[in-house]
Amino acid sequence: MKGVEASFEIITVGNELLTGGTLNTNSQWLSERITQLGGFVSRCTVIRDDVDEIAKALQESLRRDAKFVIIAGGLGPTYDDRTLEGVAKGLSRRLVVNMQALQMLKVKYKELTEKGVIEKFELTQPRVKMARLPVGGIPLPNPVGTAPGVLLRVNTSITACLPGVPAEMKGIFEDSLKQLITKVTGRVFTYLHSLILEGIVESALAPFLDRIVAQFPDVYIKSHPGGIEGKISRIRVEISGKSRRKRQSETKVMRASEKLAKLVESRGGSIAIA
Amino acid sequence: MKGVEASFEIITVGNELLTGGTLNTNSQWLSERITQLGGFVSRCTVIRDDVDEIAKALQESLRRDAKFVIIAGGLGPTYDDRTLEGVAKGLSRRLVVNMQALQMLKVKYKELTEKGVIEKFELTQPRVKMARLPVGGIPLPNPVGTAPGVLLRVNTSITACLPGVPAEMKGIFEDSLKQLITKVTGRVFTYLHSLILEGIVESALAPFLDRIVAQFPDVYIKSHPGGIEGKISRIRVEISGKSRRKRQSETKVMRASEKLAKLVESRGGSIAIA
Repeated sequence: MKGVEASFEIITVGNELLTGGTLNTNSQWLSERITQLGGFVSRCTVIRDDVDEIAKALQESLRRDAKFVIIAGGLGPTYDDRTLEGVAKGLSRRLVVNMQALQMLKVKYKELTEKGVIEKFELTQPRVKMARLPVGGIPLPNPVGTAPGVLLRVNTSITACLPGVPAEMKGIFEDSLKQLITKVTGRVFTYLHSLILEGIVESALAPFLDRIVAQFPDVYIKSHPGGIEGKISRIRVEISGKSRRKRQSETKVMRASEKLAKLVESRGGSIAIA
Repeated sequence: MKGVEASFEIITVGNELLTGGTLNTNSQWLSERITQLGGFVSRCTVIRDDVDEIAKALQESLRRDAKFVIIAGGLGPTYDDRTLEGVAKGLSRRLVVNMQALQMLKVKYKELTEKGVIEKFELTQPRVKMARLPVGGIPLPNPVGTAPGVLLRVNTSITACLPGVPAEMKGIFEDSLKQLITKVTGRVFTYLHSLILEGIVESALAPFLDRIVAQFPDVYIKSHPGGIEGKISRIRVEISGKSRRKRQSETKVMRASEKLAKLVESRGGSIAIA
């Protein structure tokens, strides 16, 4: 199915992800949304808040020919928010104060002053830092928090930086990236069908899956062993297909499912839920 | 703190992780356990069930000088379980049936036959596949499921392959890897202290964090903005320190915390929970 879609990579930045302190729900959310929008996520990388690591990870993604790289985390005002510095280094670009980004931050901090959250309006260094973008960067408005996202064109690919706070990341994604992604991917329809099989173990199912994927090369089947209760082994199977035509993916997936069900029944297994 | 610890990398394999269908709790669990055992997780990579991707990802980790690479996922009997094939390719080693691994599988499938889960005992190709290890691989017993884990020594580093089913991954890790990791890392004590700050926004906190990390270079501080309720901005701050001596890390962290509290109070903020 790789051929149908443009290749995306996700880079999430944050020490807390690599100490296990925080569960990486950002990666899952981005993967799911990109897949829904017809993109193919080929890799996700998790790195520390370290300028050289960020620079290297981005260079590696671009060398693998990712059409779209989304980097989440490290856009805030504190000392360990180093993503834009790392991206600038990775792309060999300078960091410069972007006037549009500075204007966005002014509006945000004026609002916070009027609400009484901060005492007096000041554009301090940590605040201006969030407006220092790699040359060529376009700031993306943050509908939830303060730090703007950043969009960069790198040759024929796009790199987008989003904050790590989930609500801010999602807000910028939906407001500013969704449409752009759909343009890159075109429209791809995914059809997914799940089955729960009983009375067959995964090693007995394996040759049947081989036969199905040989017969339906565009269909992807994933089996998840669900454990053994008493004598009964249970397996959840997900069958999915992608196509540019809606009916095509549905037809292929349903034919593959029926074929699999017959094979499983021939071996004494049964379909618990289809 | 990087100097104190041996560098670990985690590679998780599975299409379902990159479509967002499954949340990558395996990565978090491994990161947390390795950190608890004194290891430094420098990177986590998520890739598809693809032989070339697996081979490349492992080669990249080894080139970055990881002392320990843990690969989770793709050890089962079905067509898309390709991890051992990828690892063999990445290390330029052949896949050979390992007699010890085959014996482990025999015992498992005999048990399943005796329990009546499978009808008759057979070592079919998909079952034997789980015993085909890269040359030099040592099988690790699976206390929960069927597929053995695999341990490989690569020059001065270690690569370990674990199944993707969480209970199986955890079982093999605790039984066979924990001790080995502690040997690699030595004993490192981590002390963690959390504060909840009120009445200060992150951009106002930023210069204080700069001062603390300049004064306590071994201490790591992470701030998590907790949103604004009414006029009150809340930030959770985690201060941690690692050391080979237990008291040393505690003392440093508590001194840094006290210093930070004073700075925050000087700015009109307060410590809600310490």
